[in-house]
Amino acid sequence: MPKTLIKVDINKSPEEQSDVLHNRWHPDIPMVAMVKPGDEFRVECIDWTGGQIGNNDSANDIRDVDLTKVHYLSGPIGVEGAEPGDLLVVDILDVGAFQESEWGFTGLFDKANGGGFLTDHYPDARKACWDFHGIYTTSRHIPNVRFAGIMHPGLIGCLPSRELLNEWNKREAALVSTDPDRVPPLAALPYAETALMGRMTGEAAKEAAKEGARTVPPREHGGNCDIKNLSKGSRVFFPVYVKNAGLSMGDLHFSQGDGEITFCGAIEMAGYLDIHVSVIKGGMEKYGVKNPIFQPSPMEPRYNDYLIFEGISVDEQGKQYYLDAHVAYRQACLNAIEYLKKFGYSGEQAYAILGTAPVEGHISGIVDIPNACATLWLPTEIFDFNLKPDAEGPKIMVTSKVDLASTS
Amino acid sequence: MPKTLIKVDINKSPEEQSDVLHNRWHPDIPMVAMVKPGDEFRVECIDWTGGQIGNNDSANDIRDVDLTKVHYLSGPIGVEGAEPGDLLVVDILDVGAFQESEWGFTGLFDKANGGGFLTDHYPDARKACWDFHGIYTTSRHIPNVRFAGIMHPGLIGCLPSRELLNEWNKREAALVSTDPDRVPPLAALPYAETALMGRMTGEAAKEAAKEGARTVPPREHGGNCDIKNLSKGSRVFFPVYVKNAGLSMGDLHFSQGDGEITFCGAIEMAGYLDIHVSVIKGGMEKYGVKNPIFQPSPMEPRYNDYLIFEGISVDEQGKQYYLDAHVAYRQACLNAIEYLKKFGYSGEQAYAILGTAPVEGHISGIVDIPNACATLWLPTEIFDFNLKPDAEGPKIMVTSKVDLASTS
Amino acid sequence: MPKTLIKVDINKSPEEQSDVLHNRWHPDIPMVAMVKPGDEFRVECIDWTGGQIGNNDSANDIRDVDLTKVHYLSGPIGVEGAEPGDLLVVDILDVGAFQESEWGFTGLFDKANGGGFLTDHYPDARKACWDFHGIYTTSRHIPNVRFAGIMHPGLIGCLPSRELLNEWNKREAALVSTDPDRVPPLAALPYAETALMGRMTGEAAKEAAKEGARTVPPREHGGNCDIKNLSKGSRVFFPVYVKNAGLSMGDLHFSQGDGEITFCGAIEMAGYLDIHVSVIKGGMEKYGVKNPIFQPSPMEPRYNDYLIFEGISVDEQGKQYYLDAHVAYRQACLNAIEYLKKFGYSGEQAYAILGTAPVEGHISGIVDIPNACATLWLPTEIFDFNLKPDAEGPKIMVTSKVDLASTS
Amino acid sequence: MPKTLIKVDINKSPEEQSDVLHNRWHPDIPMVAMVKPGDEFRVECIDWTGGQIGNNDSANDIRDVDLTKVHYLSGPIGVEGAEPGDLLVVDILDVGAFQESEWGFTGLFDKANGGGFLTDHYPDARKACWDFHGIYTTSRHIPNVRFAGIMHPGLIGCLPSRELLNEWNKREAALVSTDPDRVPPLAALPYAETALMGRMTGEAAKEAAKEGARTVPPREHGGNCDIKNLSKGSRVFFPVYVKNAGLSMGDLHFSQGDGEITFCGAIEMAGYLDIHVSVIKGGMEKYGVKNPIFQPSPMEPRYNDYLIFEGISVDEQGKQYYLDAHVAYRQACLNAIEYLKKFGYSGEQAYAILGTAPVEGHISGIVDIPNACATLWLPTEIFDFNLKPDAEGPKIMVTSKVDLASTS
Repeated sequence: MPKTLIKVDINKSPEEQSDVLHNRWHPDIPMVAMVKPGDEFRVECIDWTGGQIGNNDSANDIRDVDLTKVHYLSGPIGVEGAEPGDLLVVDILDVGAFQESEWGFTGLFDKANGGGFLTDHYPDARKACWDFHGIYTTSRHIPNVRFAGIMHPGLIGCLPSRELLNEWNKREAALVSTDPDRVPPLAALPYAETALMGRMTGEAAKEAAKEGARTVPPREHGGNCDIKNLSKGSRVFFPVYVKNAGLSMGDLHFSQGDGEITFCGAIEMAGYLDIHVSVIKGGMEKYGVKNPIFQPSPMEPRYNDYLIFEGISVDEQGKQYYLDAHVAYRQACLNAIEYLKKFGYSGEQAYAILGTAPVEGHISGIVDIPNACATLWLPTEIFDFNLKPDAEGPKIMVTSKVDLASTS
Repeated sequence: MPKTLIKVDINKSPEEQSDVLHNRWHPDIPMVAMVKPGDEFRVECIDWTGGQIGNNDSANDIRDVDLTKVHYLSGPIGVEGAEPGDLLVVDILDVGAFQESEWGFTGLFDKANGGGFLTDHYPDARKACWDFHGIYTTSRHIPNVRFAGIMHPGLIGCLPSRELLNEWNKREAALVSTDPDRVPPLAALPYAETALMGRMTGEAAKEAAKEGARTVPPREHGGNCDIKNLSKGSRVFFPVYVKNAGLSMGDLHFSQGDGEITFCGAIEMAGYLDIHVSVIKGGMEKYGVKNPIFQPSPMEPRYNDYLIFEGISVDEQGKQYYLDAHVAYRQACLNAIEYLKKFGYSGEQAYAILGTAPVEGHISGIVDIPNACATLWLPTEIFDFNLKPDAEGPKIMVTSKVDLASTS
Repeated sequence: MPKTLIKVDINKSPEEQSDVLHNRWHPDIPMVAMVKPGDEFRVECIDWTGGQIGNNDSANDIRDVDLTKVHYLSGPIGVEGAEPGDLLVVDILDVGAFQESEWGFTGLFDKANGGGFLTDHYPDARKACWDFHGIYTTSRHIPNVRFAGIMHPGLIGCLPSRELLNEWNKREAALVSTDPDRVPPLAALPYAETALMGRMTGEAAKEAAKEGARTVPPREHGGNCDIKNLSKGSRVFFPVYVKNAGLSMGDLHFSQGDGEITFCGAIEMAGYLDIHVSVIKGGMEKYGVKNPIFQPSPMEPRYNDYLIFEGISVDEQGKQYYLDAHVAYRQACLNAIEYLKKFGYSGEQAYAILGTAPVEGHISGIVDIPNACATLWLPTEIFDFNLKPDAEGPKIMVTSKVDLASTS
Repeated sequence: MPKTLIKVDINKSPEEQSDVLHNRWHPDIPMVAMVKPGDEFRVECIDWTGGQIGNNDSANDIRDVDLTKVHYLSGPIGVEGAEPGDLLVVDILDVGAFQESEWGFTGLFDKANGGGFLTDHYPDARKACWDFHGIYTTSRHIPNVRFAGIMHPGLIGCLPSRELLNEWNKREAALVSTDPDRVPPLAALPYAETALMGRMTGEAAKEAAKEGARTVPPREHGGNCDIKNLSKGSRVFFPVYVKNAGLSMGDLHFSQGDGEITFCGAIEMAGYLDIHVSVIKGGMEKYGVKNPIFQPSPMEPRYNDYLIFEGISVDEQGKQYYLDAHVAYRQACLNAIEYLKKFGYSGEQAYAILGTAPVEGHISGIVDIPNACATLWLPTEIFDFNLKPDAEGPKIMVTSKVDLASTS
């Protein structure tokens, strides 16, 4: 095991661990540790909500979650010699849950507090808890399904430069201004009150908190990409914007489907990452890199027998959109949910399966005006019954009465 | 070899073969042949343009293509006993080029005549021709790349009912009316002049031509989905809307990347499909099916070593979009093109590679406001040089001066 | 389609086509055609028995087959510039059945005439015929099973030098002399009477026939390797022993399991190969190559859900062998057959499935004295029922009364 | 994390831990713990030699290893309700190294003390040590190679009945008697002196030690199968011979190639297994099971780009063997070693790579008299240079002077 560079305590609040945690992006957040190119080290992470969600059968915590606090990141870690314009090469050697905490959660956020991809269809807070069994997971809230995890950090990237930070704030504010009262909002703008600025202190921290970028979206530096394939064994090339790079990470997932459609849609967990770093000097220019690029792992779960659902960019009300892959993928998801309901799942259970299982979401056609065509690939081997269509029609196989936890 | 149900002649014009071809969707187009559930048969197809594009080194034909004529489909084929509400089960047993015509083409359409996913960046007509070598293909216009084909019909589906046809025409007209002068247009509305209505004749054909849906987009019935994974060996479940189903197909591709981003972006070819059909009575209701669903083939090319490019929904001008997977995938594509240019490819060559090779396009994150995150998966094994980043930086490996064919 | 270099007629006898066929290995067989490095061409092949086996429901032809005649090979093909010590690089671009002959056969040879891996258990002649459906095959003699083909030449290689031929004949004669009356024999020694020596004529042909090596075994040059993974899309590096190499090929298989255990165990067919050749000068020495090496295809059937059977080197009578992988694999095969019988298959059907389906046979442990451990990997997805063990025990799923064809 | 059922201390001798360890198979060894069907639990294991081999640069410990002591197994574990004739269903949920012991070793045993598959070529004791980096491993003794582990127990199975034990002893003694003075011996017969009989005590233990079967070979119950694919995520069905089954396991491997050809050929480690058990009553008869069967994991390393070496059953001296897959696989291994030497590896390094990396060994042809054909599949992606043949010939890429550790 490599040395543990950053240690956390899942029984303490994030605020008590501000020496190694932060929840905003800002160029001035001090490094919490320095490493050299070639180093291998372990980074521990609390779950993205900082312990707001419990392993129980009520969704009240999901309903009441404070989303201005997320995501709690471990770092930033300084890499000696890394400079703006370099590429930071990050090998994600391993990802795991803490042995004393082998469980995770999936939430459907309330439409008024977070929402999700299908929030108009599933507006209420709900929760599924998952138990880990080695490489597999099952949920007491979703019967007849079991799959191998594809563990990865939902969020990882380097600190932005001031210029980049300003650009983010400017463009996101411009978007919000087009519909400032929307629920959920169009973007998560800086919010000082709950900002955790790591080792910044005093007035500087207060000022930085006002402009620190929220961690919700993916951006040029990577960030909250929620790419399920940044899994253990992958190699990622990150743009460097500040001296020593400042690599931070968190939001660990035991598994996730493409799109992470329930928003809190992966199987969220606390745990650790084993990391190796090196640097390609001037790599951004050399390779023309603007966003991170990566090589996937040779060790992802190998499900090959899929049932694939198509969706086109005509919405639920029959309105036509122009090559809109968002609408098309939503239709593919809704189609898959309707299908799963025929076997006995509730809509919420089906929604949670699509968000957590190693489901693939493809942009299949994006030029055939006016319809985009998206496909959702559902691995059939994760179910303990035969899911494929046949002449007899579906049998109700999901006979258990359990369902996702509700609010009370 | 199964019996040939539909025979075409690639040396004749489509108009001379209207007994087996049509290029509009309409419920009243007569069946050209009847089959029974359980039958296996061969269907020959001309290329989607009906022979407008030649195997030569000029892109004039791409520039001048008449897109009101496409796509030429073989069919419709009637299936005994199939009724509205059924699912037509189509096994695509084989797909192949004609032995005397083992080549294909990829076009970048002119922005004023068709356009494409990156038409603002690549507005001029260009063309690449591809030679087939058994399971592989290479292009004299794109050096250092060779890959195994994933042959499939870009377009396949059943005739719409009158109600469905009316709905299509209504919603697409509504979209066009929001910006009627746009170039390229927002949708391809009915256009009687070049309609080929199969075996319809006289006044009925003229009337139907005025309302016959264009074949460009994918719709509820499938149609021009351009899903590369409807490959040989796959099984597709199509909704049935009219008596005897009326299955038509065409637009054969030797290979295509997810998104078919250059519009004429697959490797387009003439050829044949071997098909087996059966019926699930009442399957639409039984399985809750609105759009086709399918099972992929066990025989697709197995490339596993990818370099993956990320894109977010901030456009080339820095404008922020809300969870827009279209914009995000465009950025991922542009990022991949910039990368490939560092190894010596022209932008147009890189663009054509992304459209034709078995590239995957994933919707990786679709809930992290305001940014969608899309990923483009480029198989590295299709290049005859090492494409991965390293400390030395890229070497110019593509030293040949050839490029895509231009107009003259 | 590449030009057809060698054309055959499946309705004529091999003897009538001696201008392009031969059935012995000898350095003096004249080239039937010359090609250049870089050439691409088609080679047609009759089936390995030269038409002795029919598409019918009697195994009489299997029982009576003349095995001194096999295998009929197309070639030898001369490659300009190839010299002893070079490596001939052969790209197998495509393999296919003739369109007018889309069927194949699998035989269990009579113990007294050929035998097979389990001939002590299944000593009688039996036959299964297979129909091809695009990439898939089914047999009217083996219900409930359907799989994608992995088409390949069972036999391909270059002519031996005189020295190599002498070595073959010497060592094989020495083996036979240890038990000269064994049935089946320990090896197939030269047999002039039925030798087809291609374009050799007169006395020279007669003399050569006496020493021409039989085509049955794989040897240093490749030959009858029966490696299922020399499939379309693979690249093979063959040692060259004579001027112009002299490449011959035949024994096409639609599919085969590792080991080809029924001897006539693949799905045997007539058909064609599309080939590209090039040369690595001095490659044998440069790379230390004694036997062919190869790179597999990216297009093999992808079955991933296996049930795996173990076998150890203790034979059916309980006798212990020393690290004998042959005995171990036989036990694994017998174990798999017993398992399949529990679902309703006859032993002969199960045997034929193991010989033809894309079954893998692994040498799992070969050092743990005294037992070798072999594993047989049976893809479960080729059956139309659930083959995996569960608490209820197997149900008889194979209810059809059909069985392999017998003799009359 | 499941509860730890069996805890070991890698800093104590096996003899000090006889309450949970044993190194012989005998029906009377008492259960060390009882579990119920449906239970999930962790089993810790010391390395197979019980700590005889050190993480250092001398092979003296390999030379001097006491092979009468191996393998040290954790167990036996009793499963309530399991009876002779049942199948014990074992889910291997996870396998891992101890965090304080993330290294492993590979040994080439001295010919006079253990030997190995190629002991006539490599008769001297040598050693490679491996460091684990998350899912990957590298060795300071073998440069330019890095691969993802396929962790598994080399040895797992249930206690034999008295009848089965007697059969083992009888047949193995019979084999040894055919050449009793052979070095290495033909089999490892019972040897009381170093027997560790678990919780058996007194006279009973002494008597049992005299007949307790050595753990070296795989047998009907599974045992030391060294099947690399019993990896984490697999499900194994074991025959039950005694009341409560008595499941024992050990000999953990971080990785191994098919055949484990260097005998101590895997990457040997201490570590843990997470296990779930259930029972199929009467399963042996129901499914006709004699040896274990298993379903592989969806999470094995996915290397697809192989270079494949053929071998036939003619030995190094040119002697012909009859369908001998052992000899054929040895030739394939020797061919691969010669090839790797051309790139700069020592023979010993190449030998160790074949034993440890996820190499596949296939029985490709086993009926083409007189030659068996075996193939060795070497994944090319584990090397940091291009291993494939080309016209220029190999470059010496392995320039480091390091080699396997020797004796002093």
